Amino acid sequence: MAEYIGYLAAILGTIGWLPQVYKTWRSRETKSLSLPTNLLIFITVSLWFIYGLLTMSWPIIMANVFAIILVGSIVIAKLIYK
Amino acid sequence: MAEYIGYLAAILGTIGWLPQVYKTWRSRETKSLSLPTNLLIFITVSLWFIYGLLTMSWPIIMANVFAIILVGSIVIAKLIYK
Repeated sequence: MAEYIGYLAAILGTIGWLPQVYKTWRSRETKSLSLPTNLLIFITVSLWFIYGLLTMSWPIIMANVFAIILVGSIVIAKLIYK
Repeated sequence: MAEYIGYLAAILGTIGWLPQVYKTWRSRETKSLSLPTNLLIFITVSLWFIYGLLTMSWPIIMANVFAIILVGSIVIAKLIYK
């Protein structure tokens, strides 16, 4: 039971970033986005990726590869469209 | 080693939301924030909280109580300051 909730949380926590990525790149509007928060979340998902590698957990590795790409693209948009 | 990286990620992934909360409530500006993303992240941290309860993991419970409050307050701000 707990395991399935964990998987669901991992999947939602990754695809959850898609609407923000879409909105940000489409509108080129980043005024109300916090750069420190997006940078810290980017570092967070990078750490989870390393954690996944160290524990050889493929679900954690896969979820965080996607999260790195998604959150990374928001950080890049924030830096480009100030 | 992996354990410490996991703890660091859990802490960063929680306090990382603070700058966004501060910026959003101070500026009352939410135009570039995605409501679906913030709702999905809110559901995600709520699921991690339930996961923490089911596995009786205090670090996961504590981290996600804070995350629920922080992300929840961003969702509320987005709904109020459209």
